[in-house]
Amino acid sequence: MTQADLVLHGARLLTLAPLREERPRVGPAAGDVGPVPDGWVAARDGAIVATGHGATHERLERVAGAIERDVEGRVVMPGFVDPHTHLCYAGERWEEFATRRSGADYLAVLTAGGGIHATVRATREATDEALLALLQRRIGDATELGTTTIEVKSGYGLEPAEELRQLRLIAGARAIAPIDVAVTYLAAHALPAPLGDDRARFIREAIGALAAVIDEKLAEAVDAFVEKGVFDVDDVRPLFAAAKKAGLAVTLHADQLNDVGAAAFAARIRARSADHVAHASADGLRALARAQTPVVLLPGSAFFVGYAPPEARRFIAARVPLALATDHNPGTSPLEGMPNAIVLGVTLCGLTPHEAIVAATINAAHALGRGGRTGALVAGRRADVIVLDTDDERELAYRMGAPLIDEVYASGKRVA
Amino acid sequence: MTQADLVLHGARLLTLAPLREERPRVGPAAGDVGPVPDGWVAARDGAIVATGHGATHERLERVAGAIERDVEGRVVMPGFVDPHTHLCYAGERWEEFATRRSGADYLAVLTAGGGIHATVRATREATDEALLALLQRRIGDATELGTTTIEVKSGYGLEPAEELRQLRLIAGARAIAPIDVAVTYLAAHALPAPLGDDRARFIREAIGALAAVIDEKLAEAVDAFVEKGVFDVDDVRPLFAAAKKAGLAVTLHADQLNDVGAAAFAARIRARSADHVAHASADGLRALARAQTPVVLLPGSAFFVGYAPPEARRFIAARVPLALATDHNPGTSPLEGMPNAIVLGVTLCGLTPHEAIVAATINAAHALGRGGRTGALVAGRRADVIVLDTDDERELAYRMGAPLIDEVYASGKRVA
Repeated sequence: MTQADLVLHGARLLTLAPLREERPRVGPAAGDVGPVPDGWVAARDGAIVATGHGATHERLERVAGAIERDVEGRVVMPGFVDPHTHLCYAGERWEEFATRRSGADYLAVLTAGGGIHATVRATREATDEALLALLQRRIGDATELGTTTIEVKSGYGLEPAEELRQLRLIAGARAIAPIDVAVTYLAAHALPAPLGDDRARFIREAIGALAAVIDEKLAEAVDAFVEKGVFDVDDVRPLFAAAKKAGLAVTLHADQLNDVGAAAFAARIRARSADHVAHASADGLRALARAQTPVVLLPGSAFFVGYAPPEARRFIAARVPLALATDHNPGTSPLEGMPNAIVLGVTLCGLTPHEAIVAATINAAHALGRGGRTGALVAGRRADVIVLDTDDERELAYRMGAPLIDEVYASGKRVA
Repeated sequence: MTQADLVLHGARLLTLAPLREERPRVGPAAGDVGPVPDGWVAARDGAIVATGHGATHERLERVAGAIERDVEGRVVMPGFVDPHTHLCYAGERWEEFATRRSGADYLAVLTAGGGIHATVRATREATDEALLALLQRRIGDATELGTTTIEVKSGYGLEPAEELRQLRLIAGARAIAPIDVAVTYLAAHALPAPLGDDRARFIREAIGALAAVIDEKLAEAVDAFVEKGVFDVDDVRPLFAAAKKAGLAVTLHADQLNDVGAAAFAARIRARSADHVAHASADGLRALARAQTPVVLLPGSAFFVGYAPPEARRFIAARVPLALATDHNPGTSPLEGMPNAIVLGVTLCGLTPHEAIVAATINAAHALGRGGRTGALVAGRRADVIVLDTDDERELAYRMGAPLIDEVYASGKRVA
């Protein structure tokens, strides 16, 4: 008889179960959340053991001390997966937001010592203890908002030694986090000032740091910012080749503000995801669709910086898998929690509420290479589950700011 | 010796205290939040008895059972005042949001039986018990998000008997609410279909309902939607005259989408506030500034409907007092809680973070005729106080979605 230590029943259950094979949802299926009325989910030792509907959960054997809850019609669904954040930073740049809104362009902000370099400075100056405390607090806040898997990038070190320090701190935060943390080495975020425009040397040094990343198991993926005036496809090619050779996944900030061919490149190198992608060409989208490379939409930066948001319908029509993320960072997207990312994805990008929920769960899990492990309520997966304070999951898309996350379980344990 | 039953010390204290006289803040003072480092606030029997800084609070006599907290540098400020909501409704209109975003105009939505008439129907059909439960839940959610004074309008009845039922329910919710509820009779929201275009008859019937409003003390203000194609200034003049004669305040939805002269009219009749006002003429703004009529900005509807948000700098330059509200309603602004209203006010309308905080506290209190009672931490006022989970109040403007509201006190009692 199946044993359970957690049973949530009487739910509107969104399973997000795979439709045929374990692939992200695309096209007309992109909004399929698999609702089960009067559904239940049961877990044991951190993994889902079964789901069903009606009173069939009564056949499960409850182990001693099992948690059992009748959720009285509320929505039960997979915990959110936030597949793109820059949580490892110190200092805030609030003045810069005001300056930008009053018309100053980003270049002027950089020249005045602001922009990413302000965060790099503040993060370098922060002690290990201070940075770890900030990371823990940010991961805790995300957990409260229903996130059970979060990606965290380094990237405010720029120089390899400092990047490694940040990765060690993120790995330290991961070890004690109540939720799953996917660590990414953002190896090419911006050029540090002393190197001038010597991008080749910078990339060589980043590649040099990979040995420590592998040895110490600091990260599972390597990321780069491929954009006009930052790094181009040719710059990052050797970095990504070295990363893949070492067994790491690769992901990239692609075609955010200009079409630089990064989307097609991401598809070609089988990137884990291509992020932003607002300005990818039609060819780029076709390549991503063929490779089934998930695109991570980041509407927070469009909202805060004020540029035109990516158009979700273009991606859906092209059958590109879509994920959503907060892009939490101090310079362009101080957005926290997936509920607000869903509101922005629907209101600014034109996702339907159900497409946004898919993008924030199973498709986001695929964007982190975890499509078989979380993001859906299916036996064998991690019991990452949230209970909403509503019987209509579309409230996530519209009730902006509402306290909708009632209960959060990560690997079967109540964490919020 | 001054006695206290609540002492919060060790705070970054935003007093929002009146600068000279009890008027809303305008112009260069519109962002003055009066921060006191290492500040404290003390209350007794629901009212603030004193504020100060350093250890001077030790001179207060604590009554038995007094609550005393060292907030360790966190921000302590007045509870939010949300001066414009339509919380009394049943039913949701999520499909309509999707229809609108896919290009259908509001008229097509109305013709298909949607729009305000869908809410009117669902609200009429809802039982008293169901509507009261919805009101209580919504007021409770607002409280959790730091609101200690909230305005609630009727307006989904249209016919006087149903408007009176809704007002009685709102008055019932007010009687048991943990926070202060300001009830408004939205007497002219839209024409009910059976009346065709007989606006004069509709207004006469609304005036007829005023007697019951006064007798039963159901509302403190009367509101009307003055807009092209809805009601014009001449339509609502007799309604507002009757309301003022009966001792009620008046307020209006003014020049939201078109300049119909409603702003100048609001100033002339000494309205308690003029709301929306995005399209008021320069003359209209001058009139509001002269009369010091608070304008309530409602960026939520601009965000969700997708029209150009009101430009805060125009109002600040014209020395018009600005307040912010959620406009919580099921058709155009399903926004909840003042923190997100502040984010939208700053990001979309161009308020500075401190201007937005003024607009969400003391100026919003003025917009509800409560400028001397709440919205500031000053002896004699109601002890409506919140504690933030930060030492930098500007996080309210940028950390969208973050759980920043740690403690909420309404009339000196912990309510969240």
